[in-house]
Amino acid sequence: MPLPAEFHDIAKRVNNWGRWGAADEIGTLNLITDEIVRVAAGTVRSGRRIPLALPLRQDGVQTGMIPGRVNPLRTMVALNLEMFGPGTVATNDDIVTMGLQAATHWDGLAHVSHSGRIYNGRPAGTVTAHAGAAFSGIATMTTLTSRGVLLDVARARDLDRLPGGHAVTPGDLDAAEELARTTVRAGDIVLIRTGQMQVYLAGDPQGYAFPSPGLSLRTPEWFHARDVAAVANDTLTFEIFPPEVEDLWLPVHALDLVEMGMPQGQNWNLEALSQACAEAGRYEFLLDATPEPFVGAAGSPVAPVAVL
Amino acid sequence: MPLPAEFHDIAKRVNNWGRWGAADEIGTLNLITDEIVRVAAGTVRSGRRIPLALPLRQDGVQTGMIPGRVNPLRTMVALNLEMFGPGTVATNDDIVTMGLQAATHWDGLAHVSHSGRIYNGRPAGTVTAHAGAAFSGIATMTTLTSRGVLLDVARARDLDRLPGGHAVTPGDLDAAEELARTTVRAGDIVLIRTGQMQVYLAGDPQGYAFPSPGLSLRTPEWFHARDVAAVANDTLTFEIFPPEVEDLWLPVHALDLVEMGMPQGQNWNLEALSQACAEAGRYEFLLDATPEPFVGAAGSPVAPVAVL
Amino acid sequence: MPLPAEFHDIAKRVNNWGRWGAADEIGTLNLITDEIVRVAAGTVRSGRRIPLALPLRQDGVQTGMIPGRVNPLRTMVALNLEMFGPGTVATNDDIVTMGLQAATHWDGLAHVSHSGRIYNGRPAGTVTAHAGAAFSGIATMTTLTSRGVLLDVARARDLDRLPGGHAVTPGDLDAAEELARTTVRAGDIVLIRTGQMQVYLAGDPQGYAFPSPGLSLRTPEWFHARDVAAVANDTLTFEIFPPEVEDLWLPVHALDLVEMGMPQGQNWNLEALSQACAEAGRYEFLLDATPEPFVGAAGSPVAPVAVL
Amino acid sequence: MPLPAEFHDIAKRVNNWGRWGAADEIGTLNLITDEIVRVAAGTVRSGRRIPLALPLRQDGVQTGMIPGRVNPLRTMVALNLEMFGPGTVATNDDIVTMGLQAATHWDGLAHVSHSGRIYNGRPAGTVTAHAGAAFSGIATMTTLTSRGVLLDVARARDLDRLPGGHAVTPGDLDAAEELARTTVRAGDIVLIRTGQMQVYLAGDPQGYAFPSPGLSLRTPEWFHARDVAAVANDTLTFEIFPPEVEDLWLPVHALDLVEMGMPQGQNWNLEALSQACAEAGRYEFLLDATPEPFVGAAGSPVAPVAVL
Repeated sequence: MPLPAEFHDIAKRVNNWGRWGAADEIGTLNLITDEIVRVAAGTVRSGRRIPLALPLRQDGVQTGMIPGRVNPLRTMVALNLEMFGPGTVATNDDIVTMGLQAATHWDGLAHVSHSGRIYNGRPAGTVTAHAGAAFSGIATMTTLTSRGVLLDVARARDLDRLPGGHAVTPGDLDAAEELARTTVRAGDIVLIRTGQMQVYLAGDPQGYAFPSPGLSLRTPEWFHARDVAAVANDTLTFEIFPPEVEDLWLPVHALDLVEMGMPQGQNWNLEALSQACAEAGRYEFLLDATPEPFVGAAGSPVAPVAVL
Repeated sequence: MPLPAEFHDIAKRVNNWGRWGAADEIGTLNLITDEIVRVAAGTVRSGRRIPLALPLRQDGVQTGMIPGRVNPLRTMVALNLEMFGPGTVATNDDIVTMGLQAATHWDGLAHVSHSGRIYNGRPAGTVTAHAGAAFSGIATMTTLTSRGVLLDVARARDLDRLPGGHAVTPGDLDAAEELARTTVRAGDIVLIRTGQMQVYLAGDPQGYAFPSPGLSLRTPEWFHARDVAAVANDTLTFEIFPPEVEDLWLPVHALDLVEMGMPQGQNWNLEALSQACAEAGRYEFLLDATPEPFVGAAGSPVAPVAVL
Repeated sequence: MPLPAEFHDIAKRVNNWGRWGAADEIGTLNLITDEIVRVAAGTVRSGRRIPLALPLRQDGVQTGMIPGRVNPLRTMVALNLEMFGPGTVATNDDIVTMGLQAATHWDGLAHVSHSGRIYNGRPAGTVTAHAGAAFSGIATMTTLTSRGVLLDVARARDLDRLPGGHAVTPGDLDAAEELARTTVRAGDIVLIRTGQMQVYLAGDPQGYAFPSPGLSLRTPEWFHARDVAAVANDTLTFEIFPPEVEDLWLPVHALDLVEMGMPQGQNWNLEALSQACAEAGRYEFLLDATPEPFVGAAGSPVAPVAVL
Repeated sequence: MPLPAEFHDIAKRVNNWGRWGAADEIGTLNLITDEIVRVAAGTVRSGRRIPLALPLRQDGVQTGMIPGRVNPLRTMVALNLEMFGPGTVATNDDIVTMGLQAATHWDGLAHVSHSGRIYNGRPAGTVTAHAGAAFSGIATMTTLTSRGVLLDVARARDLDRLPGGHAVTPGDLDAAEELARTTVRAGDIVLIRTGQMQVYLAGDPQGYAFPSPGLSLRTPEWFHARDVAAVANDTLTFEIFPPEVEDLWLPVHALDLVEMGMPQGQNWNLEALSQACAEAGRYEFLLDATPEPFVGAAGSPVAPVAVL
């Protein structure tokens, strides 16, 4: 079934193909300039650091709903191993098997395609089994550091968390921006808090996954108008799930990743950050959220740190 | 064979057990205070960002020399998969199997034990096959952001790279500190460049691995005297390998990790940073190098970013 | 909590330590002689082959109840890859990550220990993280071919399947032996059908896992008296689970594997075999069920084939 | 570059598409009838069993020459774990990551395609990243048991092993058949010994891999004329490598797997079997070599057992 006209209309309005040249692979990350990062460093007031990643463990957020996206399974290849003989220094060493998008992660621009295309109009077939993404693999995003702004939608709406059926609208983003007392601007990394992470933290991964609040189909234009560099939130699916429009699956993914070339973050734990921002009365900070440089990957785990 | 008296003498001088309480798991990371991070953010001048991680790929730095520490093998679990029917948005999704210390990484404090103990005097047996490190697992290091200082030993010694047999001494560190025109101080993350990474980058992983320049047995006291928070370099083995003292294997690991409780970084690519610092005439920067929070892990890949 | 006297009494009666020498690693597999296999080949009547393994797939029998024992996740490392240029022969190639005991498998003799010992009195500590089982690893069982006998307990009791709380007793085995019209003898591989596999095949892995019918604490003596070489059944836990005696967990594992040195098979699909044997009016056959020779492994997947 | 006319001529002569119906997925395995297996069981004389699989370990035959085909890496997820409390029965449990064709294995019929087709004319695109082979996956070969015949080419040619550049010809097969004093017939599993495995067993995996003796382009017609069910040998590449005809890569794979629908086995250790057959003066036996039923897989490890 072809994507509806409604989708294609928005797609045209937010499309960034060619904006940074035909060879570009990193989309909106081009918007993060040295000057923007210099200013971002200046937002640091106290030096307080808030980590935003979930612990990586086998009882992570994946429930089997997304086939193959397995929670991290870490095992030891050496355990108090006296490699050089009895009484010598002993080593512990481990390996892991995990879905790159299983935990707190970035979707890279090659994570989805629609109508046979990935970002910048490249054929979907440039992603292959043996090499992954020939273009826009996550390792092309060599750094992801900029000003971060928390749009605490749940707090702005005076809720602990948005209910499962809630599509975060441009109006919600406006309200949260007002609460944040800063204006979202070019090159920002915007973090959107729904509070949904509380469901997982309370021990209910199924309820966390589905049904989930998340971004509305109407938000990509909001991000595009402000030239945001990247957006992350505290849900498994990023966008509202099940979707707002029947049979229109993952439209926000397609608009953000394919049309705009803007990376999306999921499963970020924004609870402590929400508390810290509320206490400080400030919702901007320096954010480092550089993905692990897996060559050809569709996504990557990330251990983001906000410095307030 | 018991560790020699020479080792135990140094061990006594650099020991930090109990310094931050009997319950402490993160050692010298306690030295990174909010105030230190606030000042570190102030070192940013241009906003230029330099990534320090090697790409994660199957032809990485591991050669089989360290059993089980396998290079990343990333495969697709979904490839242009139209999960919701023909013509819908298609997804790419990947998983990875890798040694947590295979690429650019941190050694956590539980990576080695000696004389039956890990950091803070805990029994080596608190690391188990099913749960990993019950104490001082890498996930306890929730953030690792501070001032970074590049000690460019190769440049200070006017060499492209130190030769394989070169043990980096306190004298070398002093020379590099002088070149850096800053004083290493409490809470710093010190990056030590030998230039050895050039061997790997030139396509010779065997030559990169061994023989390798690296830190001398005499350096832990230098770090301890300055209360450094963490140290990383551009070699596979961190310390000189084969070792300076016959049959004394991994003494620097044992002193740094077990005695001081100071994390070590390996396989960091410091080539571009060296160039950037030389150009800027400044060797200090804001460094974010937070590990991925693998619960119970002995180490973790990291994607460090220096902001100059 | 120490194991009860009841357990130790049985342990003494079934113990085989030293029976095949202090160096022995394969226990009751010593009972399979060339002559026994020659006779076993003579049981073949029709040449009909019945496979007994479950398909290996991500929606396998594991539910997360046993930590780390993950269902097989198979991914492609090459997909229609024209490695030698366009138009050349293309290849597909895959890798897997899986628990060795996740699907249809054998428990090797090193799978459990009790009171600090594995089979033949070796210390439990001879199993290590880096090398696995130094003794009695699954690869020491280089072949596992003999006469197979199906003891179809469910059919003998005129049930589709035994209920969850049913402990298979010596009396049940006698009844099934009578139905089989053959006498279980030295070197046989005995397959015990409870019918529990039907629960999994009907799409309920949780119900399959627990509660489960399975072998009673009183069966090891029955096997020992007949000098059976190996026993497999169609359940996840092999023995009744939860256990018959409160707080006495896995006693059958300990008696079979540690005391007798007899391998156990689990998750075997005996449904088609049950039908075939009933049709043929014969419950003996040639069985090949050789494990994959994973060096040092506690267990192995197996693809058993009965030839009737 | 298109495949040459020479290849297409042979392809026409050995093609089995449609022979067992348009729905067939298992090709020449259709040739193994109950009657053939009944007779095969009758070849057992002594009951002696010879295992033909290499041990599964990290220092296996893979050298990195074939990207992604990684040697088995087995790790413990439980190590003397007293899951139910101190003093209870303790368990050892392991997982593995490995290439399905890394060790002693079968190539399934979906392992290669040419000219856009796999066996029985199905599109190469029926193999996908998320599901593997929709047709002719290895799990469709539910049993692989038949008469085995060892064609000991090295012994027939009075050599310890064939040299690296030796293409095994129909003439070589005739000579080995004569040595074997049996006639290869429909439904047989033919094992071809070159002796190349000795190179690996002597500790030289590089020399084992390349250059390798192996089957000539002219052998598929020999197998086809006799209606052989499957062929395996003791090399990494199965066919001579590098190939006989310049730029004609993997022609034997394409003829055997795609055109005939005949599975191929590689890395089989035939050394002990060669000795046993020579001693017995008989080269036929009952062979069970059933693959592990990985759903959708291009291949599978196998632990074959010959019963003499």
